[in-house]
Amino acid sequence: MKYSRLFGRTIKDVPSDATIASHKFLIQAGFIRESVAGRYFFLPLGQKVMDKFVKIVEEEMAAIDAQKMLIPILQPIELWQETNRDNSGGYELMTVQDRRGAMFTPGGTGEEMFTDVVRKFQISYKDLPIHIYQFGYKFRDELRSKGGLMRTREFLMKDSYIFTENNEQFEIEYKRIVDAYVKIFKRVGLDVEVVPADNGYFGGEYCHEFIIESETGEGKYFVSEDGKYIAHEDIALFKREDVNPEDKVVEFEIFEQPDHVRTMDDNVEFYKLPASRFLKNVVYKNRITGKLIIATIRGDLQVNKNKLEHVLDMVGLLEDATDEDLASFGSKSGYVHSWGYKDYDHVMFVGDTSLRTVKNFIGGQKEETTDSRNVNYGRDFEHEITADIALAEDGFLSEDGSKLIGKKGIEVGNTFNLGYFYSDKMKGARFTDNNGKDEKYYMGSFGIGMARTIATAIEVHNDENGMIWPESIAPYTVSLISIAKSESDESYIKAQELYSSLTEKGIEVLWDDRIETRPGEKFADADLIGIPHRVIVSSRSLENGGFEYKKRSESDSKVISEAEVMELLR
Amino acid sequence: MKYSRLFGRTIKDVPSDATIASHKFLIQAGFIRESVAGRYFFLPLGQKVMDKFVKIVEEEMAAIDAQKMLIPILQPIELWQETNRDNSGGYELMTVQDRRGAMFTPGGTGEEMFTDVVRKFQISYKDLPIHIYQFGYKFRDELRSKGGLMRTREFLMKDSYIFTENNEQFEIEYKRIVDAYVKIFKRVGLDVEVVPADNGYFGGEYCHEFIIESETGEGKYFVSEDGKYIAHEDIALFKREDVNPEDKVVEFEIFEQPDHVRTMDDNVEFYKLPASRFLKNVVYKNRITGKLIIATIRGDLQVNKNKLEHVLDMVGLLEDATDEDLASFGSKSGYVHSWGYKDYDHVMFVGDTSLRTVKNFIGGQKEETTDSRNVNYGRDFEHEITADIALAEDGFLSEDGSKLIGKKGIEVGNTFNLGYFYSDKMKGARFTDNNGKDEKYYMGSFGIGMARTIATAIEVHNDENGMIWPESIAPYTVSLISIAKSESDESYIKAQELYSSLTEKGIEVLWDDRIETRPGEKFADADLIGIPHRVIVSSRSLENGGFEYKKRSESDSKVISEAEVMELLR
Repeated sequence: MKYSRLFGRTIKDVPSDATIASHKFLIQAGFIRESVAGRYFFLPLGQKVMDKFVKIVEEEMAAIDAQKMLIPILQPIELWQETNRDNSGGYELMTVQDRRGAMFTPGGTGEEMFTDVVRKFQISYKDLPIHIYQFGYKFRDELRSKGGLMRTREFLMKDSYIFTENNEQFEIEYKRIVDAYVKIFKRVGLDVEVVPADNGYFGGEYCHEFIIESETGEGKYFVSEDGKYIAHEDIALFKREDVNPEDKVVEFEIFEQPDHVRTMDDNVEFYKLPASRFLKNVVYKNRITGKLIIATIRGDLQVNKNKLEHVLDMVGLLEDATDEDLASFGSKSGYVHSWGYKDYDHVMFVGDTSLRTVKNFIGGQKEETTDSRNVNYGRDFEHEITADIALAEDGFLSEDGSKLIGKKGIEVGNTFNLGYFYSDKMKGARFTDNNGKDEKYYMGSFGIGMARTIATAIEVHNDENGMIWPESIAPYTVSLISIAKSESDESYIKAQELYSSLTEKGIEVLWDDRIETRPGEKFADADLIGIPHRVIVSSRSLENGGFEYKKRSESDSKVISEAEVMELLR
Repeated sequence: MKYSRLFGRTIKDVPSDATIASHKFLIQAGFIRESVAGRYFFLPLGQKVMDKFVKIVEEEMAAIDAQKMLIPILQPIELWQETNRDNSGGYELMTVQDRRGAMFTPGGTGEEMFTDVVRKFQISYKDLPIHIYQFGYKFRDELRSKGGLMRTREFLMKDSYIFTENNEQFEIEYKRIVDAYVKIFKRVGLDVEVVPADNGYFGGEYCHEFIIESETGEGKYFVSEDGKYIAHEDIALFKREDVNPEDKVVEFEIFEQPDHVRTMDDNVEFYKLPASRFLKNVVYKNRITGKLIIATIRGDLQVNKNKLEHVLDMVGLLEDATDEDLASFGSKSGYVHSWGYKDYDHVMFVGDTSLRTVKNFIGGQKEETTDSRNVNYGRDFEHEITADIALAEDGFLSEDGSKLIGKKGIEVGNTFNLGYFYSDKMKGARFTDNNGKDEKYYMGSFGIGMARTIATAIEVHNDENGMIWPESIAPYTVSLISIAKSESDESYIKAQELYSSLTEKGIEVLWDDRIETRPGEKFADADLIGIPHRVIVSSRSLENGGFEYKKRSESDSKVISEAEVMELLR
């Protein structure tokens, strides 16, 4: 490809919100442009990267017997009603209605559609496992899109679905897919961590996120120092050590407290005691039922909303309670009590297991000028539910006692053990077992964010001058630059010859054939675009016996002959 | 691929509306399944065909310097407002609103989006022509979908857009694209006719449809016997010969007429004169403005609504007038007059040029029991507009006097000369010319219906037993069938060896490895699926010295050795 013919060349100005490398460089170098917020055009350079990545994924999918197919983009809403993932279930789906009144949602995920196509066929246990996948466009009605290709409202996903006989068969397939995913990311220069995570909206038994460690990532996860434990922040377990095991349990008391002691910081300052000695209450509301949940936890810990939602079977439904909500049971911000409210049917309590690690808590009075002390969980109050609802933090201990290290990363893929979540709900999602009986499928779903992975490759591989593409997904293999004043210069002619030789050998070359552009600008453009191999043809290089060659990832260049160039790039 | 592992096997039952070969066979053979009406799953076999066709199109596009890219599926409605192709312009767009209130339409065509991305760049005349394209999913809110992949509500299209300096540069590019399209269809076994057609909704100067002649096609076009003229029915020109040149023009009269003479058939029977001697009036309504149009035409001809819309600059806006519409100017069905109605501002007349070919017409009175005769156009009445608004018919003469032959066909592609239609309307759709001045792009758009082309290949290549895939897009090259009672049979083992040898050579094989299925059923399945080469391994074939080989398109088989198989398929 001659650069002078390329649609989508480099630009100087970057959008002001482009703060991370991939966002900035992909736009600047002419790989992508924004349509409207969170929706991108893939320009020819970006499309070439995508096509190469698609091919890699196809190869690895074929290697584990996955079969490529395609579902429609507009999914009938009736399928989502079957699984209660439509608006009535509290989910906000974008919808579109056709002129006949049929309602659709532009697919955010494909579980319902893939289950629907499978149930159209008579499947026997001998046909299982089935692994089918697609490259499908996904639509997410994100409130905020950001980071260029990192969080968009429309994106290409490789999504796989497996239908198996039972948990044993499932586990074998699951492992094959996890291994294939690790390989795929490796092939595009990414070392991935397979992190147990929250299965949330998708239901089922467990899931893993495939995370590339990066400071620009939105995901947080923990790894234990001994390397034995890894988990996403949403589900990370940790050991709750006893706070004051030596203390004696003493009698419960109510006492006067100045009105200004309201927050945890006030408590710590006023009582000269660590936050862990106080009770903390956080109130949430189920946005469908209106039920209010008071989560009680040790003062030094934070409530993990994800864990709480799972404990309550209210996945995706909790939101922060408002002042009005607190007033509905006679309370207000800063004065929610850890017990009582028996008269209010719409209020319930959940306690974190950390409540058992403290003797003689301070806290727990509805009145503004009194407080209580020597409060002991189990003796003075106890919740209907006690469970792990706390957020792990950097430095906490794993359950084995090894220190947890918090890391940030980018989620490039995920794998879900869906269990019977979908086959339970969708009528006819059954196969015939070896006794001729109808059985539900044990299912899984698996995704790779195609554009986000490409952007992540750039987050990991870049320098201040631009991108450094891994060879496997570079839009071109060679960046050829001719420094010539006219098309009849020897350097232009030699460049043309090299371009032809390389192209004939199937090596993809982007030749910067521009005459009127300064050499410095051409070098800067080449650095920005980040093609792995650079070859310069100039009168100087020809005087020195050939072509100036340099890798994008290295700073030293050398002059080599055409034969050596061909050898190097073979 | 082992057939026993394939997802999407043959089925016996066909949907009752599957009347054409491609619809019936693609479903029966397990290439596609319907999601809801007009929206299809592509199963693995269908996907393989699509992938191969995509590759062919990519190759031919690259050969004419077209650059592949991708636009978002959800297009901001603001762009469609710029070109007046949104609902306010009378077009019914499906829309979807996100939670922030932004409105989108799932793209039915990409002119606005591609123009929008191009105008984001500073383009000079030196960068032109630009030819960019995508494989994009298109959404059409069809009232009726039918014919399987022939008319669907969601489909993959290869759509190209060119941006040129002027008409001359445009014509060169247009011709290159037309030639590439002819080549593409040739490569999938289709002889295409390039038929001038109606540019309708897309605007611009002219367009061509790429039509494959087929009895199952919905498109009608005409070819003249001398081969010099070809045109789509929507725009086909024809010669209007004088009906009664020898007659003398005589005096206009009003006379009594029985009330039962209402239709053209009544006229012909009652007056014993050919339909061409009568005046015919057809009334349409502009569905946006409410304007009523009385189209007057010679009694033996039909009004061509497409031509009429272009004459009136009301493309896509005319619909049949209702009884209520006729009453609005004091008329009713069967009694619309060819002149008068001066008191009604919302009524206008358009006459076909055929009105000049008849002397002494009969017809034209508002009263139920009178009629007029010796009506002469130009003398007794004349319309504000006289133009070609008639439909060509089989047997009519071309303007050169050669007989027109009507043909039916399937439109698999189209090319549009858009002229300045979009760059006129979209602000900033400008390049810098060689004087540094801003100039509008001269544009074109070009499409290939990917799924429809695949289905058309089957309409053309099939027999009563199933599909006969052209080798270029066959899902597999070889259909290997082992006839064995167990996996330890020699025939099974030999088949396995051949499967490995072929696969290693990069030849794609679908091996029907089923043990429990009867040979007859396996042969029937192979015929239905239609893979071009068939190899059977049975104890009998082995006794005869090898493998039974047959082409899908031929009926004779022969037994050949493994070496011969390899040679044949090399």
